[in-house]
Amino acid sequence: MWPLPRGGYLRALLAGARGAELSAAPRRASGGLSGARDSPAEAGWLRGEVDRFGGVSVRLGALDRLDAAAFQRGLHAAIQQWRSEGRAAVWLHVPILQSRFIAPAAALGFCFHHAEADSSTLTLWLGQGPSRLPGYATHQVGVAGAVFDESTRKILVVQDRNKLKNMWKFPGGLSEPGEDIGDTAVREVFEETGIRSEFRSLLSIRQQHSHPGAFGKSDMYIICRLKPRSFTIELCPHECLRCEWMDLTELAKAANATPVTSRAARLLLYGHREGFEKIDLTMDQLPAVYTGLFYKLYHRELPDSYKMMTGVD
Amino acid sequence: MWPLPRGGYLRALLAGARGAELSAAPRRASGGLSGARDSPAEAGWLRGEVDRFGGVSVRLGALDRLDAAAFQRGLHAAIQQWRSEGRAAVWLHVPILQSRFIAPAAALGFCFHHAEADSSTLTLWLGQGPSRLPGYATHQVGVAGAVFDESTRKILVVQDRNKLKNMWKFPGGLSEPGEDIGDTAVREVFEETGIRSEFRSLLSIRQQHSHPGAFGKSDMYIICRLKPRSFTIELCPHECLRCEWMDLTELAKAANATPVTSRAARLLLYGHREGFEKIDLTMDQLPAVYTGLFYKLYHRELPDSYKMMTGVD
Repeated sequence: MWPLPRGGYLRALLAGARGAELSAAPRRASGGLSGARDSPAEAGWLRGEVDRFGGVSVRLGALDRLDAAAFQRGLHAAIQQWRSEGRAAVWLHVPILQSRFIAPAAALGFCFHHAEADSSTLTLWLGQGPSRLPGYATHQVGVAGAVFDESTRKILVVQDRNKLKNMWKFPGGLSEPGEDIGDTAVREVFEETGIRSEFRSLLSIRQQHSHPGAFGKSDMYIICRLKPRSFTIELCPHECLRCEWMDLTELAKAANATPVTSRAARLLLYGHREGFEKIDLTMDQLPAVYTGLFYKLYHRELPDSYKMMTGVD
Repeated sequence: MWPLPRGGYLRALLAGARGAELSAAPRRASGGLSGARDSPAEAGWLRGEVDRFGGVSVRLGALDRLDAAAFQRGLHAAIQQWRSEGRAAVWLHVPILQSRFIAPAAALGFCFHHAEADSSTLTLWLGQGPSRLPGYATHQVGVAGAVFDESTRKILVVQDRNKLKNMWKFPGGLSEPGEDIGDTAVREVFEETGIRSEFRSLLSIRQQHSHPGAFGKSDMYIICRLKPRSFTIELCPHECLRCEWMDLTELAKAANATPVTSRAARLLLYGHREGFEKIDLTMDQLPAVYTGLFYKLYHRELPDSYKMMTGVD
């Protein structure tokens, strides 16, 4: 399935293409910065590579002697040429120290697609109708760890230092780039409370949009069930006002627990009494088709006979 | 829990503050662009607002008569001042047409935090050790719809047009900003196959990192169980090579289905035979504590007695 453009991008691309040859080979360039007579699109600095969706990708190098006005003229001419060839879009990759070229590109209609660290990417949609380019990351992922000790029926809870209301909740925080959900839960629990734990299951997923703490993007908040491996709390005072092992039923009935914490506590109570298999999402590992890497997959427990399709008919 | 800085951000902030007064009030400015003698940090264009985590936020306005070199000198002086005041970080918000100020800021150590549409945000960490600023969105969210017709035991499957291998999978695609998971599934199924459906449950979540189709960010892929409301396929030829209603057992045994599709088919088979309550994650709606908005929450079915804590003790 991935990489795959947003479906509409491809539909618009194919609708707009005027018989242009969509080649995956890099465009040839006449090399280096040239004078006014050369086709700007063939000047080295505007060399574009055609991607397999029919867009043109331009990576700016170190262009210290090129002024912004000359860049804008060249880019303007290149855009006309790409448009006549039926390209769907232009992607412009700009190293941060070459950012004087951003405003000239914006004057020609480019806008930011994304930026991180020392580079930004701008796009210009050339196809029909509104832009159907694939977007960038839209969600932050926050993970909380519900550390439940089955032998004492106690659950580890905290109160934030920084909130207006002192509500009980589970320790947690944003996942690091590249970090798996369960690892975030275990790490955050340890950083905030000093408690060591291990992943047992995924319990719940919450999705919120236009999140104030996510720069207006969306938030995926995932609660995991963890098993404690230590019991002595070492509170991080910068983040937590309080931390304690609370009786699970007490948390499930507490008025000063956030709604999602309350719900998770009640889910855990049900699982504790009727069996965790009733509430858990288990974790499995499968191979990715196109990269050969592995990924984590979460779903309800599936009997081995169904996993293997042995004797199932 | 939100908005909440990454825990380490706050810890480093408090460790580094040298008794600086952390006020939430905007810094006063002496107004307008001024000559060399005025403190640059008090010049109007470098007015910074102190946020509640001790960082300074500067929003650049229309500064058409300010050249990049003067900006860099002023910013350099301001940074010294903010550093002496124990500020943890500087956030610089730059409208795209003012992007000539980005490279000068980068020369002083700023880097991109994020950018979108017509604005970019850069940050400079002033605290101790490596930056502990909260990151930006890290995940794209893709949703697939497994449309299963219980009466015929058939499941709707597609083969992509654009892939190297023709593997059976469920229709799906990236969620739009602000779009709920179930709505994405229903929309994508309709766009690709013409089939109308409705959300029943969440089945599975997959998390992948360094995803090639996600500009190297992470990918959350969620499979939903949908109930069909129409049955006549109207294939979108730009995206799908094939689309059909396949017998579920056949899909569960097919060699040319992606591993995650295969697993989902087997999960569905188990649910079809033993009851969907064994596999479903149900959807509920809860109020957000701080905004009063609602959000969607997914977890295993929880009996009402536990939801309400009536008679549960």
